Amino acid sequence: MTESTARLMPEWLGRRSRLTPDRIAVIVGERTLTYAELDRDVSSLAASLTDVGVRSGQRIALLMRNGYSFVLATHAVMRLGAILVPLNTRLTVADLAWQCSDSGVDRLLHDSAQIAAAGEVCDRIPSLATTLVAAERGDSGQPPTLVRPVQWFGEDQLDLNAIQSIIYTSGTTGRPKGAMITYGNLWWSAIGSALNLGNHENDRWLACLPLFHVGGMSILVRAVVYGIGVVIHESFDPIAVNQAIDEQHVTIVSVVSVMLERMLATRGSRSYPPSLRCVLLGGGPASAQLLFDCAAGNLPVVQTYGLTEAASQVATLAPEDALRKLGSAGKPLFPSELRIERDGIAAGSGEVGEIVVAGPTISPGYLNQPDETATAFQDGWLHTGDLGYLDGEGFLYVVDRRDDLVISGGENVYPAEVERVLREHPSVDEAVVVGLPDPRWGQGVAAAIQIKVEASLTAAEIIDFCRARLAGYKVPTTVRFVDDLPRNAAGKILRRELRDTWPVDSAAQ
Amino acid sequence: MTESTARLMPEWLGRRSRLTPDRIAVIVGERTLTYAELDRDVSSLAASLTDVGVRSGQRIALLMRNGYSFVLATHAVMRLGAILVPLNTRLTVADLAWQCSDSGVDRLLHDSAQIAAAGEVCDRIPSLATTLVAAERGDSGQPPTLVRPVQWFGEDQLDLNAIQSIIYTSGTTGRPKGAMITYGNLWWSAIGSALNLGNHENDRWLACLPLFHVGGMSILVRAVVYGIGVVIHESFDPIAVNQAIDEQHVTIVSVVSVMLERMLATRGSRSYPPSLRCVLLGGGPASAQLLFDCAAGNLPVVQTYGLTEAASQVATLAPEDALRKLGSAGKPLFPSELRIERDGIAAGSGEVGEIVVAGPTISPGYLNQPDETATAFQDGWLHTGDLGYLDGEGFLYVVDRRDDLVISGGENVYPAEVERVLREHPSVDEAVVVGLPDPRWGQGVAAAIQIKVEASLTAAEIIDFCRARLAGYKVPTTVRFVDDLPRNAAGKILRRELRDTWPVDSAAQ
Repeated sequence: MTESTARLMPEWLGRRSRLTPDRIAVIVGERTLTYAELDRDVSSLAASLTDVGVRSGQRIALLMRNGYSFVLATHAVMRLGAILVPLNTRLTVADLAWQCSDSGVDRLLHDSAQIAAAGEVCDRIPSLATTLVAAERGDSGQPPTLVRPVQWFGEDQLDLNAIQSIIYTSGTTGRPKGAMITYGNLWWSAIGSALNLGNHENDRWLACLPLFHVGGMSILVRAVVYGIGVVIHESFDPIAVNQAIDEQHVTIVSVVSVMLERMLATRGSRSYPPSLRCVLLGGGPASAQLLFDCAAGNLPVVQTYGLTEAASQVATLAPEDALRKLGSAGKPLFPSELRIERDGIAAGSGEVGEIVVAGPTISPGYLNQPDETATAFQDGWLHTGDLGYLDGEGFLYVVDRRDDLVISGGENVYPAEVERVLREHPSVDEAVVVGLPDPRWGQGVAAAIQIKVEASLTAAEIIDFCRARLAGYKVPTTVRFVDDLPRNAAGKILRRELRDTWPVDSAAQ
Repeated sequence: MTESTARLMPEWLGRRSRLTPDRIAVIVGERTLTYAELDRDVSSLAASLTDVGVRSGQRIALLMRNGYSFVLATHAVMRLGAILVPLNTRLTVADLAWQCSDSGVDRLLHDSAQIAAAGEVCDRIPSLATTLVAAERGDSGQPPTLVRPVQWFGEDQLDLNAIQSIIYTSGTTGRPKGAMITYGNLWWSAIGSALNLGNHENDRWLACLPLFHVGGMSILVRAVVYGIGVVIHESFDPIAVNQAIDEQHVTIVSVVSVMLERMLATRGSRSYPPSLRCVLLGGGPASAQLLFDCAAGNLPVVQTYGLTEAASQVATLAPEDALRKLGSAGKPLFPSELRIERDGIAAGSGEVGEIVVAGPTISPGYLNQPDETATAFQDGWLHTGDLGYLDGEGFLYVVDRRDDLVISGGENVYPAEVERVLREHPSVDEAVVVGLPDPRWGQGVAAAIQIKVEASLTAAEIIDFCRARLAGYKVPTTVRFVDDLPRNAAGKILRRELRDTWPVDSAAQ
């Protein structure tokens, strides 16, 4: 008898290029490539990497902007059975070198924009080999034919239990942790997403988020599994994104709130074409204003809650509930499990607790961090460190990071709630709330506020504004006006950095 | 570390009813039920079955027409962890009793139309218990609320490696074999189908094929996994099918050739609505005429090749290739493997050989038939007994059943090829070709022909017609005109029966 639970399956890009060789796979800049062409270029790069000694099981770092080189390198490393370590191009050389050392990288692949950075990383790790992948410009010069003839036997196989990548979490606190992601994690994530968002033959997914994060890389995997095209932007430009949606038949786009706000701001009152069927909004809770603006403009926003350790989406709001459950991240993906825990036991409906998740998309753990792994991963359940609740119908509302919770006088203050109120003030552009040590209350509520251009606001005014809208213990006692907020490469606000660098003499009230 | 290849997952209907309780699940006759309502009714039936002693691991036979009772019983048996044995209602009592004995059935569930037949089966197997499931008429009388409150923990789980059903193959030759189908077989089949045909939120699948065959039962599974509605017809009526497509937003319908011909014949020149996005055509090769008629009428026909032992589809023609590759069954599903073998080695492109398939949809084997299992299932590859070839682009063309092959004077004659020519004759309604023992050639080519109403035809005329179109050794030497052809419950022609009952005195020429 055979095992019915598959562990081996055909290598994805190879299979896809045999199934639908002529479908569009990648659109990047002026270039459009079919699956046959992508497969050919990947085979060619894989052969070159084999020539320089890349072997199955090696760890291969990628230091690249979004672009065709990134796509090729990702698939070539997968084809060779090596393990991908995608690096955040915005990190310092010291951080990059640390991640390469931690993950035991054998070779660093970089694009032409990262030649200097790659060199500096190598200066710190002399044993590290580097390879430039320069596929961005022009044609690869090869004829557009399949390198391999159609062949349904002797196909390469992949093992769903094998590690596909080590992705360092873009956590806002603590030392980065390398989450090990298996092929199975990515496969089940792609399937779970398709069962929720649907899977249309003519879909085209726009990737303007960094591909080095799990939210970007998982788009590359989904595209190949679904047989759809992915439009890749080197970086986020709201005008270019709007134009791609109008002119390139983009049906799905993955964004975070700040991107969506900028897309709407630059677009004005022009509506989006009906071909855009899903705006997948991740990266944390969105403001009610943004969601209402999107609803008013008929923009089909689907909020999602995901994390690196779950190979991206865990819960996603189904399109039919998008308006009725504004602000919710929806329900778990079909194969995923989700519960809310308070002091180790299941919370009741409406009760805030830690979001705990399980299922086939969950990483087997952090590389080289047995203690962190044992703490976060218990009996197959990942303790996310995020706070949320389920409403009476089972819809998830993400409240905050547990690490960001402010406890003032024994009361829980969720920064996100205070920030939402602050952002409602017409002069406030962005606001972040953290807890500062307070001799009397344990922690005090402190707000860093960026005001709008040409607006003016005093600390007293904003505190009065909050008093009218929040319980007393939630009202900030410390307000600071700032020009900029510290953010990580994914655009997430670095709360710990903000808290740790808070000036001791900042004006209270 | 957790296993990334999932083996346990949330029980499908329970999960679906929590995710999308208000979506339409089933439309049958005048009744429309949501997933919450279906879940409630299934829970209720499962409780009743528990009361009469049904337990996990028992084998529970279903003797039912298509209808709501069939849907409820299928899900209730799954929910209880029992094993389903769907029986063909058109079989004789002796055959039904044999299948019940062979599979060790503990209890027979039947609908009100099968009371007499169920009684007769019990007369032959006194230990067999029976239960009437009468959910066809009227409302179940319960309030339309969820029996179970939303709960994301403590959900029932299912094991993808567990046997979900034993389905007797509707083979046209030999004794029926009980193929064991696992939950994993059905899951991967549903996913493979979605990755090929797409998965739209508003899909609605019409089941007018018998639900007791794998092609029908797999629709029930896909509906729950995708969260779409299924329209169930008690039996095939071309006018009712056309009407459902027009009025009930049917997007996909599963049919065999003879059904499709009757749908077109009763419809006349009226075109089908664009909402019908896929006509999944199985059950053997279709005539070129039918495919051209469909193409002319813009009917989106997608040919498929499947079998019980593969939990339905193995290969399916992608919509974009439907016209370019008329007559092909397409390429394997994304997770499935397929090759053509000749004398145990891989055949070249264009060479006819046995179709051999592998992958996660393949049954672990036949119940109680270790020899048949060992012959058919070798190292995870299922030897289908069907003949076909792959063209230069890897598209599968199914030629015939290997068992049906006629070898005349050392030459291979594929009955399907001769039948296609016979059907091109304007007076021929249906034609079947078999091999009869021939002292000189080993086998002779014999044709049984049904002529059209009011048409006339002689054996000499049809033989002349074939001589002008076929190689000499393929031309029938024996022709017989018949009023009816023996068919099994699925509408497949019983070639062996035709051959074995061929009158010895039938006129040669």
